[in-house]
Amino acid sequence: MDAIGKRRWAIAEGYIPPQSTGTSRELVSHEAACILNAGDDPAQIAITIFFKDRSPAGPYRVAVPARRTLHLRFNDLRDPEPIPPGTDYASVIESDVPVVVQHTRLDSRQAELALLSTIAYGTD
Amino acid sequence: MDAIGKRRWAIAEGYIPPQSTGTSRELVSHEAACILNAGDDPAQIAITIFFKDRSPAGPYRVAVPARRTLHLRFNDLRDPEPIPPGTDYASVIESDVPVVVQHTRLDSRQAELALLSTIAYGTD
Amino acid sequence: MDAIGKRRWAIAEGYIPPQSTGTSRELVSHEAACILNAGDDPAQIAITIFFKDRSPAGPYRVAVPARRTLHLRFNDLRDPEPIPPGTDYASVIESDVPVVVQHTRLDSRQAELALLSTIAYGTD
Amino acid sequence: MDAIGKRRWAIAEGYIPPQSTGTSRELVSHEAACILNAGDDPAQIAITIFFKDRSPAGPYRVAVPARRTLHLRFNDLRDPEPIPPGTDYASVIESDVPVVVQHTRLDSRQAELALLSTIAYGTD
Repeated sequence: MDAIGKRRWAIAEGYIPPQSTGTSRELVSHEAACILNAGDDPAQIAITIFFKDRSPAGPYRVAVPARRTLHLRFNDLRDPEPIPPGTDYASVIESDVPVVVQHTRLDSRQAELALLSTIAYGTD
Repeated sequence: MDAIGKRRWAIAEGYIPPQSTGTSRELVSHEAACILNAGDDPAQIAITIFFKDRSPAGPYRVAVPARRTLHLRFNDLRDPEPIPPGTDYASVIESDVPVVVQHTRLDSRQAELALLSTIAYGTD
Repeated sequence: MDAIGKRRWAIAEGYIPPQSTGTSRELVSHEAACILNAGDDPAQIAITIFFKDRSPAGPYRVAVPARRTLHLRFNDLRDPEPIPPGTDYASVIESDVPVVVQHTRLDSRQAELALLSTIAYGTD
Repeated sequence: MDAIGKRRWAIAEGYIPPQSTGTSRELVSHEAACILNAGDDPAQIAITIFFKDRSPAGPYRVAVPARRTLHLRFNDLRDPEPIPPGTDYASVIESDVPVVVQHTRLDSRQAELALLSTIAYGTD
């Protein structure tokens, strides 16, 4: 399939809820960048995390194979450093081939979950 | 009415919740691609589903008549294969005429429902 | 202020929940098109509603004065006909000057509310 | 990092819920514009608030340093005037350098929270 998307994406909203009521991985509070690489070449991706009052963190490097999707949880990023929960952040996601990025949060701080999602801001 | 929209759309986020608390069709957990064909020609649509660790599924074929909207539930796709619940996926929606695609999920795994929606990523 | 936005907008998702648990106007289930006219000229707006299996309804006509916003509830549309609750629909919003349109739903069918929102699809 | 984004953004939806059930700052009902300035120059930002039936308020002025993000709560704006809760509004956010703006609301009027988020409408 022809590649679809852009090479640079920004998500201005980021926040990992510090608590959860869910115990399964599915229902633990999390924040995700869903990345689709519909094209025929693998995507090498670099993520930079921005904060309110300190220097950016990263780059975090992930790969998305050709014709695959990766629903990346920011909670799972470890190298070079974890993102602290309960802290406002933002992210820029850069790829060497066109991809599509969508932002989703599941918040289970309270007994019932809340969801948000939006397409990220994409450019070349 | 003049056609409005794009011919290729991508939804990078996809997840059919594996359980529901709702019993009516309206309140069963579902994931939908809402497709609007505002123009005067019928739309022939092909949907391809992407996964994390297997080859894409599809194409799934649907038609949207001229001046009509279709709120397509991914849960309902059967041919060539159903989409497994509880699995991360993404989708590309291709049309022979311009359409507009919006992504919505109703999650009723817990007693109270949660909603998300976003415009998809569109291009020509 | 210089006008900002586009003249044609589409919202592919539309659904007025048939029940509410809220009793105040704020907490009654509703679906809204939030329209911003930031420019110095009044906006004359025509809304067309699309369905799955019948001809479109409308146009519904509203005006948004210069430098004002209108959070229009689809529930409130009456002329030429009300939109039936519990029915899938979509909408096209056409303006004679640039405006910005955002789609929001508050669903209070169950005891706790759910929210969704997305920027609409805009073009000229 | 190269700057990313646009210089003018609009959020057509705005509403500060008049009540909260949360007592912590995190869980108080709030409405935010998340602004990312990924570039190497500081951003000077002017926000104008539009209403249904009165003249716009503002400009409210904030700065976002280079390579930083600001998750600005509309509830916190005070100069030249606070935004009244329980009132429909919209906003235009203008920056002297490219930024990315995303809109988020946490609604905790009822016991369980609801979330919405969308990328704003951006232009130059």
